[in-house]
Amino acid sequence: MRLKLGMVGGGQGAFIGGLHRIAARLDGQWELVAGALSSDPIRAVLSAHTLGIAAERSYASYAAMATAEAARADGIDAVAIVTPNHLHAPVATAFLHAGIPVICDKPMTRTAAEAEALAALVAETGVPFILTQTYTGYAMVREARALVARGAIGPVRHVQVEYLQDWLASPVEATGQKQALWRTDPAMSGDGGCIADIGTHALNLATFVSGLAPVAVLADLTAFGPGRRLDDNAAVMLRFDQGAKGMIWATQIAPGTKNALRLRIVGAAGGLSWDQEHPDDLSFTPLGEPTRLLRRGGETVLTPSRTPAGHPEGYLDAFATLYADAAQAVRAYRSRQAGDLPADLPGSAEGVSGMRFVAACVASSRKGGVWVDLDGQSCRAGAA
Amino acid sequence: MRLKLGMVGGGQGAFIGGLHRIAARLDGQWELVAGALSSDPIRAVLSAHTLGIAAERSYASYAAMATAEAARADGIDAVAIVTPNHLHAPVATAFLHAGIPVICDKPMTRTAAEAEALAALVAETGVPFILTQTYTGYAMVREARALVARGAIGPVRHVQVEYLQDWLASPVEATGQKQALWRTDPAMSGDGGCIADIGTHALNLATFVSGLAPVAVLADLTAFGPGRRLDDNAAVMLRFDQGAKGMIWATQIAPGTKNALRLRIVGAAGGLSWDQEHPDDLSFTPLGEPTRLLRRGGETVLTPSRTPAGHPEGYLDAFATLYADAAQAVRAYRSRQAGDLPADLPGSAEGVSGMRFVAACVASSRKGGVWVDLDGQSCRAGAA
Amino acid sequence: MRLKLGMVGGGQGAFIGGLHRIAARLDGQWELVAGALSSDPIRAVLSAHTLGIAAERSYASYAAMATAEAARADGIDAVAIVTPNHLHAPVATAFLHAGIPVICDKPMTRTAAEAEALAALVAETGVPFILTQTYTGYAMVREARALVARGAIGPVRHVQVEYLQDWLASPVEATGQKQALWRTDPAMSGDGGCIADIGTHALNLATFVSGLAPVAVLADLTAFGPGRRLDDNAAVMLRFDQGAKGMIWATQIAPGTKNALRLRIVGAAGGLSWDQEHPDDLSFTPLGEPTRLLRRGGETVLTPSRTPAGHPEGYLDAFATLYADAAQAVRAYRSRQAGDLPADLPGSAEGVSGMRFVAACVASSRKGGVWVDLDGQSCRAGAA
Amino acid sequence: MRLKLGMVGGGQGAFIGGLHRIAARLDGQWELVAGALSSDPIRAVLSAHTLGIAAERSYASYAAMATAEAARADGIDAVAIVTPNHLHAPVATAFLHAGIPVICDKPMTRTAAEAEALAALVAETGVPFILTQTYTGYAMVREARALVARGAIGPVRHVQVEYLQDWLASPVEATGQKQALWRTDPAMSGDGGCIADIGTHALNLATFVSGLAPVAVLADLTAFGPGRRLDDNAAVMLRFDQGAKGMIWATQIAPGTKNALRLRIVGAAGGLSWDQEHPDDLSFTPLGEPTRLLRRGGETVLTPSRTPAGHPEGYLDAFATLYADAAQAVRAYRSRQAGDLPADLPGSAEGVSGMRFVAACVASSRKGGVWVDLDGQSCRAGAA
Repeated sequence: MRLKLGMVGGGQGAFIGGLHRIAARLDGQWELVAGALSSDPIRAVLSAHTLGIAAERSYASYAAMATAEAARADGIDAVAIVTPNHLHAPVATAFLHAGIPVICDKPMTRTAAEAEALAALVAETGVPFILTQTYTGYAMVREARALVARGAIGPVRHVQVEYLQDWLASPVEATGQKQALWRTDPAMSGDGGCIADIGTHALNLATFVSGLAPVAVLADLTAFGPGRRLDDNAAVMLRFDQGAKGMIWATQIAPGTKNALRLRIVGAAGGLSWDQEHPDDLSFTPLGEPTRLLRRGGETVLTPSRTPAGHPEGYLDAFATLYADAAQAVRAYRSRQAGDLPADLPGSAEGVSGMRFVAACVASSRKGGVWVDLDGQSCRAGAA
Repeated sequence: MRLKLGMVGGGQGAFIGGLHRIAARLDGQWELVAGALSSDPIRAVLSAHTLGIAAERSYASYAAMATAEAARADGIDAVAIVTPNHLHAPVATAFLHAGIPVICDKPMTRTAAEAEALAALVAETGVPFILTQTYTGYAMVREARALVARGAIGPVRHVQVEYLQDWLASPVEATGQKQALWRTDPAMSGDGGCIADIGTHALNLATFVSGLAPVAVLADLTAFGPGRRLDDNAAVMLRFDQGAKGMIWATQIAPGTKNALRLRIVGAAGGLSWDQEHPDDLSFTPLGEPTRLLRRGGETVLTPSRTPAGHPEGYLDAFATLYADAAQAVRAYRSRQAGDLPADLPGSAEGVSGMRFVAACVASSRKGGVWVDLDGQSCRAGAA
Repeated sequence: MRLKLGMVGGGQGAFIGGLHRIAARLDGQWELVAGALSSDPIRAVLSAHTLGIAAERSYASYAAMATAEAARADGIDAVAIVTPNHLHAPVATAFLHAGIPVICDKPMTRTAAEAEALAALVAETGVPFILTQTYTGYAMVREARALVARGAIGPVRHVQVEYLQDWLASPVEATGQKQALWRTDPAMSGDGGCIADIGTHALNLATFVSGLAPVAVLADLTAFGPGRRLDDNAAVMLRFDQGAKGMIWATQIAPGTKNALRLRIVGAAGGLSWDQEHPDDLSFTPLGEPTRLLRRGGETVLTPSRTPAGHPEGYLDAFATLYADAAQAVRAYRSRQAGDLPADLPGSAEGVSGMRFVAACVASSRKGGVWVDLDGQSCRAGAA
Repeated sequence: MRLKLGMVGGGQGAFIGGLHRIAARLDGQWELVAGALSSDPIRAVLSAHTLGIAAERSYASYAAMATAEAARADGIDAVAIVTPNHLHAPVATAFLHAGIPVICDKPMTRTAAEAEALAALVAETGVPFILTQTYTGYAMVREARALVARGAIGPVRHVQVEYLQDWLASPVEATGQKQALWRTDPAMSGDGGCIADIGTHALNLATFVSGLAPVAVLADLTAFGPGRRLDDNAAVMLRFDQGAKGMIWATQIAPGTKNALRLRIVGAAGGLSWDQEHPDDLSFTPLGEPTRLLRRGGETVLTPSRTPAGHPEGYLDAFATLYADAAQAVRAYRSRQAGDLPADLPGSAEGVSGMRFVAACVASSRKGGVWVDLDGQSCRAGAA
């Protein structure tokens, strides 16, 4: 049977909510039955109607929704939170308290402290919390992770991530463009601009595939847009556990780049390269041998996916894979099974890691570009 | 409101039916409510149950389904036909007679004569008939078509299409692999092997984007697989109307290729190149200027799509776009509006064209590689 | 010691002669000491002076040069012929009669008959005749040839070559551009335009790497340029010995393409792909395994070259490799050793093959696109 | 007339000397007439003989050569220094004192102090000193520099360079491989390993194209090879004048990479991307427009080169372009013309810049990864 999904945020005019709905629908495991789709009551009602949500399950507030749905025999199996970032924490808290699993858009919260508190609540309640770090849903990202995990490239030495966009190359916030407005406003986005918006994806991809955790960062965050208050270009150095090094270049001002997230991992016995804009291809080089092009669905590739090799997997497939895994997690929870998330599914730990990374980068940059540990404290130069 | 979809074929163990269901679900415009999912009654019932189809709407035969659904007040709005090819014609005929729109997997039928008869029935009944030539659903294929239509490359001079796969490079039919078995069996596939299975896609892509129609073909069809009875490698020359020339190379025995469908169009004032395996990119060169990389969602690109530039559109998105257009066509039909399909949506004309192309190629090749017109008749050498 | 080179053609204002001189100089094995550089006596003298050729070895005619150099104790070791095509045969004949090895720019002659006569003379005299089919000088082309020869891809099934340029996309001959003028003039170029100018390279590459010989061709040659008298777009089908098939698309009107010569070979046990514009890379797929990127100088690659992997080999390197091989052939000849050319060095056989190919394509196309054998005679359809 | 070239180093068994000789020969402007080719007298004599150098101009020491050649009426016009790095300074000093122009392989010297002293001598004597930063010789690198200089991408914001190799991925020095032995030995290479060997190329490319100068660096240098004494992986952050930022990742341990030097420049009004392994292509995006592929020799490209578009320029061409420019510089010097080098030709200033960069990176890394200015002094965090 289909699982019942509720949604907070994502009413008419919103962006990411629509993609969540497609992702939820794609495999036919979820049905949208309830929502608090907008803080604007008229818009909430209209949006619910358009989406086929029954009138009595269109709520005026997320709090009312959490209470009511928890009380229904046919209450929702999970809620998707697709609000602006600063609401993630209170909304998630309400639903976790109500025992309802949460599927939360990234970043987890506005601050690292909120993230840590929320993670503690997740641990305490045992209710599934899923963070939609979408790029981990691509089959070849998972294949890369599996290759590293089984030692195909040996111990990791260096991790290089770049994430390039160009939509803030000109001062679009001055034109009133909404996405730009809130993303460049510290009051709404917190202390990190580009480093929070996409730098967190870069870090997540690095750690997801490499299996490493960062121990220190050094960041040089710059706001190149005239009058811009948050960084739009981030240069970051990393030191991982086990002695590995890394670099992240995240920028939203690089003309000609759209969503150019690329990962390269250097291991002692081989290397990997993956590019989000051509996600079916994974370049793998065993040391001393020619580079092999591994293709989703192709020879030697074990990660399952929906279409055969050569029939491209898109962003929405990757997104849907997270919803499929979320369904598995929720079903296990509903059947009272013990409760880790599926191994590849990001949750609260990944969320906390991302928020601490942003805070540390901001701290490092404000101090002029010094090494800080993941608590944002300066650490002995070279100690990491 | 969602449209109600029925399905013929696509039970457990089938392949393409599952992709149709995802495509139908993706935009939330269709709901699967009825089916004759298998000729095996047990499998039909089990499949229907798994898919959430009510027991009374799981039919033992397509004929029963057409009659019953036409009689219901809440009958299906359209039927998706995902059976083996030889059933396309009789199933479609039954539903068209019942006044139920048809969404038919390609190729349209087993023979050109069947296709022509079916097209006549479509014209006579006025009931929508949609052919899922999936690749026409990609945004950048539609963008390419629009560019040609508005004269961006001037009159078309040459159209080059290649469609390369490798899954028949070894004699897999000897291992009992089912897809290979029926595709290499003339009794089940008709006279064309590779030329029918993927050559038709190549032709469809060529005509869809160029706006041209073929007037003569010359084909050299070869079965390289030992003991193979149908072609697995097709070399085709084309002459289009308006004096344009073309070539198609379609093969299923090229190691290292998965679904490498590539189109290049040479115009008097510019050129285009598109590759299905990297569908978001379209290379466009105005004569005498540097090549431009047009990207889905990017600058100057007008064709709408679901995700922003850099968030890859996949095969399932393209498929879903056909179902979205089909929904539009069916809604127009239901509201008794006059009835052409949306301009970009393939229908019976495209189906007939493909079947005549296959027949002509087979005729040409059997005659030793001579020019034939689209009726398969030898035409004066060089006349076209 | 350096070998002494003479040159016929290549005076001021000429194009290909300068590239021959660079190629000859690059490895330091040749020294230019004599020339009949131009039919214009003033230009001949000035060109010789500029190139440091002694005044007494600057000749007014190739005939005088052949006689005089043959008579000198320090006469040239070889002559490079870089004249317009119609002079290749008489010039080469003169030097072969004088016992002087010939390095001849392609195509070998203006007609197939001339080529055959010249090849007979080469056989009769035993004097080395080298044809500069430049693309065979690339290391990875030779590597590809070696891979095929040692069975890495099994028996060849299909050979696909495309050679795309755009410099004739507009009617540049109308502007008086010299290269365009003579290449579109049957009086100067013979019966083939694009098919002779670049189609011969395509064929040569196909046969050089595959080891196959063509047995029949079918061509559709078109002149798209308004008023143009020779083909600028050539579609060709081939049947090779041993049952292999092939296609060539050669065009000089494809906007955005400069010198896009690409070869793909489909074998029963693997495939190869090579692109002249990125010549250091060779894609190799053993059947059932991931594609490997073989790189010049890299792992498993045996063909020698001048620079390490990653330091690109250019067109002039490839050209110079032919001159290095020519030096080896000439030294062997001078030392009276028995006399086949180095195995990878094109000679008169390749030249004859190219000229017969052009003649056959022209014959096929004039007959309306029918199969002809390599004598240009129609052959039983499908017989090949 | 040809210029007369001498060479110090480059005897039998050496590597880079042979490439210098090819580069010098390619355009026919230089003739090798003298040498002190090896510190081993036997090898020196044999090498000279093989290269056609007269016995009396094969010298036992560079000092003797400088003196003798300066005294000859037909003395060399320039000397190429291709010794190990630690000899660059003394050899160059000797020839500059003798009034003989110097063409010096990079890096300029072993230490920054030596480089500064040498630059002072160059300024004092007015004798041309050319540093062969080979990559600046590629036509499209020069085109990129010209585009930036004429404002095509607006003020530069960020410069990203990566330079990846894999030849030190395994501990090849333990096998006695000579190139690896001296490059991992501080006694022979100085304090920098990878950062000196290829990091200097990365910096040079960044500054050559962007027109910017670095004001501060922060480096994290790592030796991953077991027991290796010099860095084989370098992560560097840069701050340039005019507020631009930058990053360099240079590594010699990344499996699958050969000489992957890539430059990206982000400007306020556009962006550029260039890859040394495919040097004919330059990606250029004017802000808000589709990316254009600029090709050497193609539309709108102004930088001259030897072969037409599509006929690849290789590493040796780029190298030869430096020798062609050096010839121009030397001719001007010989004719007593006032004396700047051609604008695109690297000289002592570039050499000093590179050596100071290496010293600063080593200082930064030894301090644990802190910002230092180009004198290697720690600078106020964030001051730059």
